[in-house]
Amino acid sequence: MSALATGDSLLAEALTAIAAEVDAAYDAMLPVPDDARARLFEAMRYATIGGGKRLRPLLLTAVAAMYGVEREAAIRAAIALESIHVYSLIHDDLPCMDDDALRHGKPTLHLAFDEATAVLAGDSLHDFAFEILSDPATCADPFTRIELVRALACASGAHGMAGGQMMDLVAEESEFDLPTVTRLQQLKTGALLGAAVEMGAILGHVQPAGRTHLRGYARDIGLAFQIADDLIDHEGDATLAGKAVGKDAEAGKETFVSLLGADRAREQARMLVDQAVSHLAQHGAEADLLRSVARFIVERDR
Amino acid sequence: MSALATGDSLLAEALTAIAAEVDAAYDAMLPVPDDARARLFEAMRYATIGGGKRLRPLLLTAVAAMYGVEREAAIRAAIALESIHVYSLIHDDLPCMDDDALRHGKPTLHLAFDEATAVLAGDSLHDFAFEILSDPATCADPFTRIELVRALACASGAHGMAGGQMMDLVAEESEFDLPTVTRLQQLKTGALLGAAVEMGAILGHVQPAGRTHLRGYARDIGLAFQIADDLIDHEGDATLAGKAVGKDAEAGKETFVSLLGADRAREQARMLVDQAVSHLAQHGAEADLLRSVARFIVERDR
Repeated sequence: MSALATGDSLLAEALTAIAAEVDAAYDAMLPVPDDARARLFEAMRYATIGGGKRLRPLLLTAVAAMYGVEREAAIRAAIALESIHVYSLIHDDLPCMDDDALRHGKPTLHLAFDEATAVLAGDSLHDFAFEILSDPATCADPFTRIELVRALACASGAHGMAGGQMMDLVAEESEFDLPTVTRLQQLKTGALLGAAVEMGAILGHVQPAGRTHLRGYARDIGLAFQIADDLIDHEGDATLAGKAVGKDAEAGKETFVSLLGADRAREQARMLVDQAVSHLAQHGAEADLLRSVARFIVERDR
Repeated sequence: MSALATGDSLLAEALTAIAAEVDAAYDAMLPVPDDARARLFEAMRYATIGGGKRLRPLLLTAVAAMYGVEREAAIRAAIALESIHVYSLIHDDLPCMDDDALRHGKPTLHLAFDEATAVLAGDSLHDFAFEILSDPATCADPFTRIELVRALACASGAHGMAGGQMMDLVAEESEFDLPTVTRLQQLKTGALLGAAVEMGAILGHVQPAGRTHLRGYARDIGLAFQIADDLIDHEGDATLAGKAVGKDAEAGKETFVSLLGADRAREQARMLVDQAVSHLAQHGAEADLLRSVARFIVERDR
């Protein structure tokens, strides 16, 4: 089932809306200067506008909406988060990392521009995230802003996503077991999905104790997402996926699919989705979008 | 005159002290975890401990001390700033960027480890900066912390250092004139030196209007620093410099030296230092270290 062919109209509308809002925000926030830095901004625009499912912005804005957060603030925080995600993809695609040629159905940034520009555009988007979050335009309250910065920086760095990417590099030379692959994925993919939910709750002034069920939801959909990704890599179609497939097996990396087999992996993903939804039991219809996102995560084909 | 052979004992002591404090802080803040991320943390330690003049930490802590800031808070902010500087050197040294083999007299990170680890260690130090600044341990007041984040993110990104690095890449294919080279260097080197002074003033609760003279000082020493760097690249000794020299001419880049000639460049640097010192006229002995730093910047040989 593809994203826009989903029978879930709530989800389909939300996916369409967030994609348009994210594109419009990047377009407005990244004007190209009329000087020698033009190439850098063009590269940042190439990487950010018009690509990806915008799953992290969708999650962040969905949680923020549950707590009555103004849409503009939620979109700005979502742009910060998505910028971290995009920068990590740019660097991950570099020849010295995964050496990928295709991303969201387009040539990767280092092929469309060059490697040096790709390194710098990634670095610039990395800063852009913290420029946005620290800007009073995102939220007048400095405590909320610094909490957003803290959540994102911790999720992104060596104790979060970047640590998971390091484990992923080591995975090519090691035989990781299931707990280690789980830990790797909780860091590499789970940390930013967790930040999406956390940042939505921070904007909604939900105290840390009141975020526990949301963290549980994020942890479960994070793992389900990665299992679904492994299944797409294992069985998928590169044209649909918009990126190369079959790469994990080629690199000799253990994945949920190699360790569990495709059938048990699929079953595990479904179980995680049920568990994620059960974390939302205290909420009524206001959490329906989060429930739809959880189901979408295992039903998508890209 | 080398850093530690300077006749200026105030400066010599401050340089020795800040080097030891920065090394000790990195050693304490970057313990190596006992899992597959160990290599990442070892790379972060290799790049951060035991190298460099620590000019940015020196400047930040010197300004903070003028305004009575507690030393521990100033050192933590200085570590954040230095982490951005170090990450930028790691990425700048990559084969697709400047392709340098030597940094602070040691093999560059991608040679000591590998390119992928160098990309990730740079990215992780980039986050580490914002993790430190957003941590309540740096400063209890959230407004001060978010101001520090904002100053550093803006100085580091596409509108600051990274924008300057992009211009530097373009410089190899263009014939930049003096105003363009000046602008390039104000971004590439000046932005972080400006952030050093700005962050010290933020910690000292100096209002933006009261920072104007410090910004003038930072702007002047930033340009003087770059002219001195160009002179070292033009005339210098690779062993003393701890990095390759003569690279700008080889790359066909215009520099202050190529545009002005060595004599006029040296004169210009001295004039900028005088001007920087004149910005401090309202201060007494408490600004002596800043005056010494300004002179050191043009007298150093590395």
